[in-house]
Amino acid sequence: MKSDIEISRSARLLPITDVAAQLGLEHQDIEPYGHYKAKVRIDSLNKLQDRPDGKLVLVSAITPTPFGEGKTVNTIGLTMGLSMLGRKAISCIRQPSMGPVFGIKGGAAGGGYAQVVPMEDFNLHLTGDIHAITSAHNLASAALDSRLYHEEREGYEAFEQRSGLTALKIDKNRIVWKRVVDHNDRAMRTITVGQPGNTTGENMNGVPREEGFDITVASELMAILALTDSIQDMRRRIGKAILAYDLDGKPVTAEDLKVAGAMTAIMKDAINPTLMQNLEGGACLIHAGPFANIAHGNSSILADRLALKMGDYVVTEAGFGSDMGLEKFCNIKAHYSGKTPDVAVLVCSLRGLKSHSGLFDLKPGKPLDKGMIEPNQEALEKGVCNLQWHINNVKRYGLPVVVAVNRFPDDTKEELNWLLEQAREFGATGAAISDTFRFGGEGAMAVASEVEQACSTQPAQFQRLYPLDTGLQDKITTLATKGYGAATVNFSEQAAQQIAELEAQGYGNLPVCMAKTPLSISHDPMLKGAPVGFDFPVREVRVSAGAGFVYILCGQIMTMPGLGSKPGYMNIDIDDNGHITGLS
Amino acid sequence: MKSDIEISRSARLLPITDVAAQLGLEHQDIEPYGHYKAKVRIDSLNKLQDRPDGKLVLVSAITPTPFGEGKTVNTIGLTMGLSMLGRKAISCIRQPSMGPVFGIKGGAAGGGYAQVVPMEDFNLHLTGDIHAITSAHNLASAALDSRLYHEEREGYEAFEQRSGLTALKIDKNRIVWKRVVDHNDRAMRTITVGQPGNTTGENMNGVPREEGFDITVASELMAILALTDSIQDMRRRIGKAILAYDLDGKPVTAEDLKVAGAMTAIMKDAINPTLMQNLEGGACLIHAGPFANIAHGNSSILADRLALKMGDYVVTEAGFGSDMGLEKFCNIKAHYSGKTPDVAVLVCSLRGLKSHSGLFDLKPGKPLDKGMIEPNQEALEKGVCNLQWHINNVKRYGLPVVVAVNRFPDDTKEELNWLLEQAREFGATGAAISDTFRFGGEGAMAVASEVEQACSTQPAQFQRLYPLDTGLQDKITTLATKGYGAATVNFSEQAAQQIAELEAQGYGNLPVCMAKTPLSISHDPMLKGAPVGFDFPVREVRVSAGAGFVYILCGQIMTMPGLGSKPGYMNIDIDDNGHITGLS
Repeated sequence: MKSDIEISRSARLLPITDVAAQLGLEHQDIEPYGHYKAKVRIDSLNKLQDRPDGKLVLVSAITPTPFGEGKTVNTIGLTMGLSMLGRKAISCIRQPSMGPVFGIKGGAAGGGYAQVVPMEDFNLHLTGDIHAITSAHNLASAALDSRLYHEEREGYEAFEQRSGLTALKIDKNRIVWKRVVDHNDRAMRTITVGQPGNTTGENMNGVPREEGFDITVASELMAILALTDSIQDMRRRIGKAILAYDLDGKPVTAEDLKVAGAMTAIMKDAINPTLMQNLEGGACLIHAGPFANIAHGNSSILADRLALKMGDYVVTEAGFGSDMGLEKFCNIKAHYSGKTPDVAVLVCSLRGLKSHSGLFDLKPGKPLDKGMIEPNQEALEKGVCNLQWHINNVKRYGLPVVVAVNRFPDDTKEELNWLLEQAREFGATGAAISDTFRFGGEGAMAVASEVEQACSTQPAQFQRLYPLDTGLQDKITTLATKGYGAATVNFSEQAAQQIAELEAQGYGNLPVCMAKTPLSISHDPMLKGAPVGFDFPVREVRVSAGAGFVYILCGQIMTMPGLGSKPGYMNIDIDDNGHITGLS
Repeated sequence: MKSDIEISRSARLLPITDVAAQLGLEHQDIEPYGHYKAKVRIDSLNKLQDRPDGKLVLVSAITPTPFGEGKTVNTIGLTMGLSMLGRKAISCIRQPSMGPVFGIKGGAAGGGYAQVVPMEDFNLHLTGDIHAITSAHNLASAALDSRLYHEEREGYEAFEQRSGLTALKIDKNRIVWKRVVDHNDRAMRTITVGQPGNTTGENMNGVPREEGFDITVASELMAILALTDSIQDMRRRIGKAILAYDLDGKPVTAEDLKVAGAMTAIMKDAINPTLMQNLEGGACLIHAGPFANIAHGNSSILADRLALKMGDYVVTEAGFGSDMGLEKFCNIKAHYSGKTPDVAVLVCSLRGLKSHSGLFDLKPGKPLDKGMIEPNQEALEKGVCNLQWHINNVKRYGLPVVVAVNRFPDDTKEELNWLLEQAREFGATGAAISDTFRFGGEGAMAVASEVEQACSTQPAQFQRLYPLDTGLQDKITTLATKGYGAATVNFSEQAAQQIAELEAQGYGNLPVCMAKTPLSISHDPMLKGAPVGFDFPVREVRVSAGAGFVYILCGQIMTMPGLGSKPGYMNIDIDDNGHITGLS
């Protein structure tokens, strides 16, 4: 079989204006970026507002394994499958960070015959949204350090008299807005800025302090972009983002620094979702890509809203397993959008479930154990509890669930059929095999039929997991016990204090966003399958006041990956025609 | 008069496809970015190659003053003026950094009725080239720090055995590739990276070392983009860029790190110039924006080349005074492009020349002294020596020179006429008043006529200032004495040693790029007018091996500006329609 980039390059693409026209979008509704990408202006929602919404299909997965279940492949594939059934279907997915592209994982445009194309455009700059976020985010940092410097250098009173501004009295030890870069850059995790260098005399390089870089997709601006519904709302949210605390412990926001307007100006084009096409000419909207731990891991509300007005079916993907992205879709994104899913799809694979048996030692980069690839009924039976847990988890939200078994070349009919039967026994509304990686839309038609049937026979009766107007401790406890199966929750002293502080500051009614490992339903990546009876630790509690959620750190959460000793960038080059090679 | 952004917003723009069509560019030659910007594919040079070149007009200026002479205004204006005379004229200008846009200076799209529009697109992301450079540059930094970490952590031998790569043995004290960000960010000038932070035990955050950030336009990649002539050439140049030295003192290049291919891939779209339009519908190519001190301060060779094949006249701008950008155009850019100017334009103003009288105290941000705005023959006569010097300087390169006096509202006829006469007496081929800020192309017609006449009556007899095959010391001495008027040159011990080292490494035949203040013809910003007899200090000598020049540091050169206490970003916001306000 050809490589992803070979398949992408040999595809015959439609002009993006044709893809837009199929959706009913006219010249003034889009802004082309080259011939195969376009921004869809969110203004076009005005003329679409009276149309009914299509069905919203949320693609989630079992607890992910180091080799991935194929969730993006199946999001793209299912869209193509629905199109083959004669439905107008649109995918809504996240824009990938360039960090993993040059690090280890490679591209994120799907794979095989279920890709968004051209895949190199998708994986590199796309239409510049992540760059805009990096730039807006770091302008706030430069503004903050500059203000700190001028106020400390002149003294608060002199500063106020000369500048006519109110001194913000920033506490340099409580700056919470780290800088960002869209690379895996380990050396920038912890740094010291504002050092005098070789200059003699007064330090003209700012105020020395400890600082760090996160990867851009961890920026609160990314979460804001994903949750906003208009440029005015985005402006307000950016203004509310907390950058630091002052010497009295009060929040210092982007509004206080008078930088929120300029940040919004930098992001004025980023607010429009990007339209591309899949390998079969269907539409795909790409917009925002927030982390699925410290943020909510879903593409944007605006892209969903546009797509729902233009399509019969909108297929969107939520990050990691259903305990992560799907939970956050239901409890955070749906709260701000007012739109809940009609059906959920759980992607799984035989090898993925076998890995949950506890019989194998899994490490990224390590070749797969044969026992996961070959028929192995014992491993499958021991690991299938993970699927059962996720089916039950989806049903907790009142959604019908379709299980899509992502087929790999060595999978046997026997094991596949056994799994489909199990899925139905566990309460799945439907279950089917997906062969979309090899066969595109045709390989996804079985899943597409099940999705369509689930929508028509079992209307969703959505319910969120916790009410918003209880205390933060209650919300966290509900999520940990009912949401993950913990027996008890252990709040650190620091966390308890932070919760009290945040509630006093008026953030108690926000939804909570759990920053835990995606590799287990619990907080502990070593607990595979469907763990129960564990004690769930809450280490730290912080607020993303602009995005509009409180996030809960449960253990070490990495917000800046590193590069391995033989990273992906070593394979990437250009050929004699100037085409990119080695991207996969 | 309306503000720049009001004029820009009220303009009736042509679709960019129409602007392209006027140039003979077809659908497949361009990649639209929205309806008013497009990338011109450099492949289109293939079909244009048999066309004759148009005339190349190089716009320079007297030694600049804190308020600016209006060089970009006159570059755009002159293009419009030539169009009014019935010529097909195209501007080629640099992309501005966002640092000054949010810092103090505001936009750089020209001004008044001589602007490139839409000005907010020009001043913010344009088509993402600077973002691409930031990203490619910082990927190299992440790669470097990661390699240093893995080699030091494992030990060279173990690293080689496990990875199959040759240890680079990077000297962490001789890393010359700083990181970049496109903001004025003082606190990042000197930092320490790779610190352990709160982690206990082994430091997993890299190797601690001193590091710093430059503003992106100071990146060698920006100079490479401006000097390259194909994607393959860009790939080779990036590979040659020196990132560090190893423990034996040998260069470690991007090629050695195996990251040059990925860096080129990130810049694959950046190599195509961006097409926009001026307020009268004429074409403007915007491409690259290297610093005019540590780099050569001119827009790209590729944009010039494209424009020369499409227009009768190509008007391009060189940074700062003729001792800076124009000198570097003639001695560096023309060396790599093979294309020399047909005529030079020197922009000056009455107030600018008065400021060279030495009678006034000039500071950025300080309101102008009345004595510079009102008639003041004494100041004018004392300062006009600066214009004389620049006229002579241009003639040194065998170019005819047209003086354009940029008119300000309070300027008197008497002073303006006196100045025009002086200019001709000093040997200018032509001289005229420019009123393009207020009247667009019409206000530039007089200058346009002079330019056209100079081209037809006085063909350029170009000569460079120094031969390339002499030693670096000779080249620097020629430039300082013949180029600036220094009596003597004082090489520091460090500089002499670096010159010896660079010549031994094979970089002796490269052109030299002087990194000196633009605020005086000499190295000392306080020496106004036309200083002579000074001793010129050479502090440090470094190489940009990929860009292809040796650069000479003469005093403190700032490669990372800071923000003032009331920076420009405070004025910028969006209005109720989502339009940007406060950008000027």
